[in-house]
Amino acid sequence: MFTRMQTLTTEDINKIHQASMAILKETGIVFNDDECVEIFKKSGAKVEGRTVYLTEEEVMKAISQAPSSFMVKGRNPEKNVKLGGNDFALLPGYGAPFITEPGGHQREGTFKDYEDFVKLVQTSKSINMNGFLMVEPSDCAVDAAHLDMFLAGLFNCDKPLMGTPLSRKAARDCVELLAVAYGGRDKLMDHPATVSLCNSLSPLQFSEEMASSIVELVRGGQAVCVAALIMTGSSGPITIPGVLALQNAEILAGLTLAQLVRPGAPVIYGSTSSAMDMKSGSLSIGAPELSMFTSFTAQIAQHYNLPCRSGGGLCDAMMTDAQAGAESAFALFNAINSGVNFILHTAGILGGYISISFEKFLLDEELGAMISRMVRPTAFSDETIDLATIQKVGPGGHYLTEPKTFKLCRKEIYQTGLMNRQNYEGWQSAGSKNLEQVATDKVKERLASFVAPDMPASLKADLLQKAAELSGGAALKIKA
Amino acid sequence: MFTRMQTLTTEDINKIHQASMAILKETGIVFNDDECVEIFKKSGAKVEGRTVYLTEEEVMKAISQAPSSFMVKGRNPEKNVKLGGNDFALLPGYGAPFITEPGGHQREGTFKDYEDFVKLVQTSKSINMNGFLMVEPSDCAVDAAHLDMFLAGLFNCDKPLMGTPLSRKAARDCVELLAVAYGGRDKLMDHPATVSLCNSLSPLQFSEEMASSIVELVRGGQAVCVAALIMTGSSGPITIPGVLALQNAEILAGLTLAQLVRPGAPVIYGSTSSAMDMKSGSLSIGAPELSMFTSFTAQIAQHYNLPCRSGGGLCDAMMTDAQAGAESAFALFNAINSGVNFILHTAGILGGYISISFEKFLLDEELGAMISRMVRPTAFSDETIDLATIQKVGPGGHYLTEPKTFKLCRKEIYQTGLMNRQNYEGWQSAGSKNLEQVATDKVKERLASFVAPDMPASLKADLLQKAAELSGGAALKIKA
Repeated sequence: MFTRMQTLTTEDINKIHQASMAILKETGIVFNDDECVEIFKKSGAKVEGRTVYLTEEEVMKAISQAPSSFMVKGRNPEKNVKLGGNDFALLPGYGAPFITEPGGHQREGTFKDYEDFVKLVQTSKSINMNGFLMVEPSDCAVDAAHLDMFLAGLFNCDKPLMGTPLSRKAARDCVELLAVAYGGRDKLMDHPATVSLCNSLSPLQFSEEMASSIVELVRGGQAVCVAALIMTGSSGPITIPGVLALQNAEILAGLTLAQLVRPGAPVIYGSTSSAMDMKSGSLSIGAPELSMFTSFTAQIAQHYNLPCRSGGGLCDAMMTDAQAGAESAFALFNAINSGVNFILHTAGILGGYISISFEKFLLDEELGAMISRMVRPTAFSDETIDLATIQKVGPGGHYLTEPKTFKLCRKEIYQTGLMNRQNYEGWQSAGSKNLEQVATDKVKERLASFVAPDMPASLKADLLQKAAELSGGAALKIKA
Repeated sequence: MFTRMQTLTTEDINKIHQASMAILKETGIVFNDDECVEIFKKSGAKVEGRTVYLTEEEVMKAISQAPSSFMVKGRNPEKNVKLGGNDFALLPGYGAPFITEPGGHQREGTFKDYEDFVKLVQTSKSINMNGFLMVEPSDCAVDAAHLDMFLAGLFNCDKPLMGTPLSRKAARDCVELLAVAYGGRDKLMDHPATVSLCNSLSPLQFSEEMASSIVELVRGGQAVCVAALIMTGSSGPITIPGVLALQNAEILAGLTLAQLVRPGAPVIYGSTSSAMDMKSGSLSIGAPELSMFTSFTAQIAQHYNLPCRSGGGLCDAMMTDAQAGAESAFALFNAINSGVNFILHTAGILGGYISISFEKFLLDEELGAMISRMVRPTAFSDETIDLATIQKVGPGGHYLTEPKTFKLCRKEIYQTGLMNRQNYEGWQSAGSKNLEQVATDKVKERLASFVAPDMPASLKADLLQKAAELSGGAALKIKA
């Protein structure tokens, strides 16, 4: 198909690949974790201090062991997701320190907000997986927050979820809780129940927290997404090709670590690199360059035959306004259309990651549903063209009362639960509301009618007990 | 490149083509204009009353004479546009009866509004052509409105513009005024100075106004876009393949007429078919199906080797809110990315064509500029990857002070003139404005500082005199 978004040639991709290989071999990459450095040393890689140098052979051998697609199991097996090839999952926003209220006011997030986002995920028709750290719960104990959030996810949602890669300890806790939920550690090894986000620290570093989380989670049978977020001209080169070469080196190094820990471990090649705004000096995730990075990153991941991660409904807007709608639509459409498989931040993010909003979540899940309709295959057959009806209606007639219209209208035409399709008079009688106002009402309705999915009381008690053990005395907010 | 938007197979396109050929041969199509019927008769086509029956041979012979791309000249030759292949032009909204004020209030449009939209087009960095009938000017005399609007376009804008296909008379008037502007009718014949929108009346009809406009404009050397707007389940089948077959029959019949009038006439294959909303029974142009129609239509036009037209920033939203942003971003991105060449309605439209808004215009022209950045080719070379700098900065450094960052930052990174990229504090000190409010301010600034492009006083006088003659005594609003 003709597309104006650029298709990388084999030569383009080889240039990126060769540059990345030169970076890893000659400049090396720093892993700020002793065990990781040992793992690389043991594998035969050259190591100086905490700088690891990798050859093309070492990297490609490791990468070739990674599966091109895998399944993530949910508590409800009907909600398992497949990641890779043509299969993709949409996930909520991640890591927002603040909540944006309607109108744009920001406030600190609470554990109740976190639970409410889990409830929106559970009741969403388009979000396929639950997230982690959707908002930072400011009222949780520091040592227990990851346990509170993880259990909030398990108690209120039966879709697959994300792990807790905040530290070596937190990553271990994730596996411990999963072992309780699934009846033993050995039950976790055939299919992961979580995917965790393990970012590089650009340029060319991995923090102790991220590096050790990769090791612990992979050991526990869980999938990791190794992703870079490089800002052009700041944490990476000013050019798009330069950033692609740098992030490729970082991602491949992280994925190599995962494969050394456990050959064949399910992993994802990820990036949300974007532009630095030249006026403010801050990251712009509403920038058109974000969609270019998404498209190029997907093409490079496809070259390595790896599942790919990008951002979703990303924007720099401070409230759920026209800017939020447009930037998020660009970002999410390009993620899905480019073939990305694991689309984090699909729903809720505002202000360049600084906050998450309930109204924005509803907008974005709708955008995800709309794009899913756009990419649903259409069959071109004698039956779908239905020449006989066209010839019967003829010039000047109408199709309103044709039997096929009645039969197919609900299946063929997407029906929106959020967007205005009324005329001016209808819109006025409904209160002349903008989308943010409509979404505010709908959030309330959805949370008010929420029913948690079933979970045996004994399992809930076991999980709470295990979490209490793991919290080392810190008080948990989560209740049965 | 991998895309999840569906690529039509040769077999899919053949199925559409064969169905359209069967429709034209067996069911026929009605042209409600005697001269058009005569033209078909003379060409040897079968005609019964005003129903014209066309064979595949007749259609394909005609279509094969149409150019695959052509140039439209502006008053300022530096602003000429090429339509076809990889070249595309963005145009403003068309045909809106109302103006939407900030907040969503609708009011009737005036001639001053029309002139203001021309001024926005002239000063736009992304809109390449001026439109026609951007808003219906309720204070113009009925017989003179097309003359007022056309001259407002010529006086305030030196980009190529759209013609006035409201009736046979209006189409003739367009050619007469162009002859004055360009120094004689013969000066119009090598390159058109206008493109006119000539819609079919689905299913399977052309109104007298549209049919006769095709004839008059093509005779005058002007380009015509023959387009269908079919509503699924209402003026066409409920299925997407059915609508594609029906609209293809209509468009090809109209283009055949144009080629019979003047073989080799520059023409455009167009559609903005979309879904009927099942709840309201009204047209939805924010529907995901619109983008599917755009993509499929572009692929079919490419099959016939013809320039293609679609809609642009289309939406069902009643004001410039998050819905407007998202729906317009989907529609415009898919138009540009699918390879559409003539993108009408790029900027301004709200409420399913019912109104146009100055604020929405500013949003949409920004979206057009952002997408143009996304599709700008990136060179992958040793220079753009710049391995030496990556290796010099190494792990843990930064690129802020690298010479390349200074040298390339303005060229490499898109700079927005509309979107918020400030942090929360910066956004608050700027007044905590949503995009609609920001755009309201910017519209005022741009109109206040408008300077009309040069036009010799004598030419202006000649055009006004000719328009006065053509108006048959109706008072013109346009002034020198």
